[in-house]
Amino acid sequence: MPDKQVLERFAAITGPDHALTSEADLAPYLTENRGLYRGRTAMVLKPGSTEEVAAILKLASETGTPIVPASGRTGLVGGQVPRDAGDDVVLSLERLNRIRDVDPVANVIAADSGAILADIQKAAEAVDRLFPLSLGSEGSCRIGGNLSTNAGGTAVLAYGNMRQLCLGLEVVLPTGEIWDGMRRLKKDNTGYDLRDLFIGAEGTLGVITGAVLKLFPRPRGHQVAFAGLKSTQDALALFEYAAGLCGTALTGFELMPRIGVEFTARHIPGVRDPLETVHDWYALIDISTSDAEETAERMMSTLMSTAFERDLIQDATIAASEQQRAALWHMRESMSDAQKPEGGSIKHDVSVPISRIPQFMTEAEAEVMKAMPGARICAFGHLGDGNIHYNISQPVGADKQAFLGRWREANAIVHTIVLKHGGSISAEHGIGQLKRDELATIRTSIEMDLMHRIKKAFDPAGIMNPGKVLQ
Amino acid sequence: MPDKQVLERFAAITGPDHALTSEADLAPYLTENRGLYRGRTAMVLKPGSTEEVAAILKLASETGTPIVPASGRTGLVGGQVPRDAGDDVVLSLERLNRIRDVDPVANVIAADSGAILADIQKAAEAVDRLFPLSLGSEGSCRIGGNLSTNAGGTAVLAYGNMRQLCLGLEVVLPTGEIWDGMRRLKKDNTGYDLRDLFIGAEGTLGVITGAVLKLFPRPRGHQVAFAGLKSTQDALALFEYAAGLCGTALTGFELMPRIGVEFTARHIPGVRDPLETVHDWYALIDISTSDAEETAERMMSTLMSTAFERDLIQDATIAASEQQRAALWHMRESMSDAQKPEGGSIKHDVSVPISRIPQFMTEAEAEVMKAMPGARICAFGHLGDGNIHYNISQPVGADKQAFLGRWREANAIVHTIVLKHGGSISAEHGIGQLKRDELATIRTSIEMDLMHRIKKAFDPAGIMNPGKVLQ
Repeated sequence: MPDKQVLERFAAITGPDHALTSEADLAPYLTENRGLYRGRTAMVLKPGSTEEVAAILKLASETGTPIVPASGRTGLVGGQVPRDAGDDVVLSLERLNRIRDVDPVANVIAADSGAILADIQKAAEAVDRLFPLSLGSEGSCRIGGNLSTNAGGTAVLAYGNMRQLCLGLEVVLPTGEIWDGMRRLKKDNTGYDLRDLFIGAEGTLGVITGAVLKLFPRPRGHQVAFAGLKSTQDALALFEYAAGLCGTALTGFELMPRIGVEFTARHIPGVRDPLETVHDWYALIDISTSDAEETAERMMSTLMSTAFERDLIQDATIAASEQQRAALWHMRESMSDAQKPEGGSIKHDVSVPISRIPQFMTEAEAEVMKAMPGARICAFGHLGDGNIHYNISQPVGADKQAFLGRWREANAIVHTIVLKHGGSISAEHGIGQLKRDELATIRTSIEMDLMHRIKKAFDPAGIMNPGKVLQ
Repeated sequence: MPDKQVLERFAAITGPDHALTSEADLAPYLTENRGLYRGRTAMVLKPGSTEEVAAILKLASETGTPIVPASGRTGLVGGQVPRDAGDDVVLSLERLNRIRDVDPVANVIAADSGAILADIQKAAEAVDRLFPLSLGSEGSCRIGGNLSTNAGGTAVLAYGNMRQLCLGLEVVLPTGEIWDGMRRLKKDNTGYDLRDLFIGAEGTLGVITGAVLKLFPRPRGHQVAFAGLKSTQDALALFEYAAGLCGTALTGFELMPRIGVEFTARHIPGVRDPLETVHDWYALIDISTSDAEETAERMMSTLMSTAFERDLIQDATIAASEQQRAALWHMRESMSDAQKPEGGSIKHDVSVPISRIPQFMTEAEAEVMKAMPGARICAFGHLGDGNIHYNISQPVGADKQAFLGRWREANAIVHTIVLKHGGSISAEHGIGQLKRDELATIRTSIEMDLMHRIKKAFDPAGIMNPGKVLQ
C-alpha cells in the first residue's frame, strides 16, 4: 500500500473531491463483470485533464507507485482490476469525457479517451455519419478501453476493429511526458508506428487520453436475414458466397447454435425463435449499402434465392422493418446474458482462419464432451472474422462452482485445438490477467523477449498496469 | 569497408555465386531512380532462404557490419542505397521470391518478401481474387519493400495501404533470431503489435523475409470517369458527394492540374486530352462494385448527373470499355514520367486532412511562385486520401542543376504550409535518407526519443540500415 504522504500528493493533483478513498467509493473499481477478479486499492484518482494525468504518472514514476488505468471497466480479462496486494492506485478516465470536435468533411471525430462509445456514435449520427464500432457494452464502455484492448464487436467484418478506426492518439507516457499524436491523416509514413503500439497494449505502455477516430458515410440500404442451416460447413460456404456477392456491403455474418437460440428465447424478454422450424445452426446476415435501399434488397434477395438453390440454407426470414432488424440483432447480442440463468459458463474468445472453423468446431466439441459429459456448448460469434465465443454451459443440475473450477482445464482443451489450426487464444478481449501466464507458454521466447524489451523501453520504472499482459 | 576475412565469411553463407563483388555487378545497387543518392559497397549478398538471412544478420551483429536491405529498389527516399563510406553490405531479397501458398477460402496469400508485387497480383487473379495494392512500379517492386515503406498507391481509398493489407510477417531480427509472425487471423489481440512496428520501419528494425497478405473478392462492376473542374474546392465537394453516394465502392479519386494533362499529352505516347474543353483541374473517378455492373453504372450516372446539376463539374467523359478505362488511368499514372522532358522537377509527397486541400493548394502556390517565378506547379494525386504529389517543374529555359539545387529550399516552403495544416511531409514514400534530418526537426523530442528507444531495444548493435529514418 502506498504511504499516506504519497497518497496525499496524488490527491493534491486532482483535488480531494476527485481522489476517492472510502470503501463504498472504491468498491466499483475492485471487481469486473464476470466475477473472476477482485482486487484492492487505497485510492481511485479521477483526473480532469491530460495535464493532471501527466502529473499523476510523473509522481507515480518518482515514487514507484503502480497505476491501473480504468476506462468503462467492461473488460473481460481483468485488465482494469487492481492487484490484490493493494499497492496499485487506480486512474479513472471517467471525467475526461469530452467530444473535442467533429469534422464531417474530413470524416473524423476527436475526443477524450473517457468518452462513452455510445456518445461517439451519437455525435457521428448528429452530422449524418457512422462510427461503426458496436459492442454489447457500448452504453458504458469508454473509447480509452476500446483502444487499449483493440475492441472488435459486430461491425469488424466491414469496418475493422478499433485499430483500423483510429487515426491519432494522445498518450501520457509513464514518465509523465505527453505524446501528442492527434493526427488526422489517412496517410503518414514518417517513422515508427507508435500509435499501433499503444493500441492493444492494455494500459501497460502509457495512458491514452485522447483519440482521433474515423467516421464513415451512413449506409442508405439495410437488410438483415436470419437463416437456419444444417452445418457449420454450410455456414462457411454461405459466408464465402455472400462475401463474393456483397463485398464490403456484407457488414455482419454471425453464427449461432440451436442451444443459443433456445437460451435467448427462454430467458430474454421479448425474444422468440424467428423460424418455425428447428435447425442445428443459424446465421444472421447483415447487408448495408451506401446507395439506395433497392441495392441492399437486390443483394439480399439474390443471396437468399441462390443459397436455397444450393441447399446451403433450410429456412430463412428477412426482416421487413428496422424494428425487426433490431430484434434479430438483439437476439444475437443477448446470447451471452442468456447463458447466466443456465448456471456456470466457461468462456473462450478464440479465432482461427475462417476456412478452419468447421474442423475446429467438430474437434473442440468432441474433446469438450469427452472431458465434460452433459456440458452444453454454446459456441457463437463473428464467423466472418473467424472469431468464435466458445462458451460452455454447465450440465443441467451440476454444481456451479465445481464446474467453474474447471475453467483452466477447459481452456487448455479448447486452446490446444485453436493453436493447432494457427488460431488465437484471444481474438478480441485481450490478455489482461486472465491469459497472461498462458500467453508466455504459447509464444516463442523471442516474441516474449521483444515484448519485454518494448515494455522496458517505454516504462523503465514498471509502473504502468503491472502484472497485466506481461509478468 | 569490412575487412576481407569478414567478407569471406559472409560469402560462405550464400555461396560465392550469390555474393557479388565486381564493380559491374555492384553498380545497380548503388543508385536510385531519381539520381539523388549514390553509395558504395564492397559486397551484395543474395541469400536463398530465411535461414541464410538469419546467418548473415548474426554475423553482421557479431562483426558490427552495417546491413542495407534491398528489395525491388524502387524507393524514392534513398532507403535502399548504401552509404557513401562503403562500410555497408547490401542484402538483396531478390532470390527470396516464392509465392508460398494461396488460400482463396481464407482470402490470404503467403509469400517470400522478395516476391514481385505484380506476381502477387497475378497469383490472386488466378484464383479469382484481388490483391489491391497498385503502384506505378508494380512490375519490379517487391513486397518486402512495399511492407517496409508501408506503400500506398492508387487503391488506398477503398482498401488501405500495405499496413491494412498485411496479416502476418516473418522477420529476421538484427541478432539473427527469426520471429515467426506468419499469422492468418483477422482478429488476434494477444500482446503488443509487433507486426505494425516492422511495417514502415524501412529495414531499420530487422529484415522482413515473408508475409501473409489479404485477398479480396474481384469487383464485378467497374466505371471510370474523367471530369473537368473549375477549382480544388469543387473537387473536394465532388469527392464528398461521391464518398457519400458510393461508400466503399469509390475506389479511386485522383486530382490532376491542367499542366499535368498537358505534359502527358505532349510527352507520353498514345495519351491525349480526353475532353475537348480546357479546365484548370481534373478528377479521375473510379467506382468498383462487388455486385452487378449495372450497380456501378447506376452509381456513376447518378454521380455525374448530380454533379452537373450542382455545377461541380464542367465537362466529363465516362469510359465505355475496359480499354478506355485503362487509358484514363494510364494518363494519371504517367504524370510523373511526363515531367522529365520538361526539365528539373522538385518533388514532394505530402498529405493534409482532406478538408484542408483547397487552402493548402492556394497557399503553397502563392509561396512557391513568389520564391520561384516561372516555376510550373504540377500538383496531383490521391485527393481522397489527402495525399498530393506536389511537384514543381523548372521555369522554361532555366538551368536544370541550378533549379534542382533549390530542392531543400522548396521543401521548406511547402512543408511549412503542410505542417501548419496538421499534415505529413511523407504521406507514402517514407523517410529514408531524404527526410531523415527534417523528421528530427518537425517531431517533438519525446516522439524522437521513443523511436530511438525502440531502435535500441531491437537493434542494440546498430547494424540495421543505419543512417536511414533516424540519425
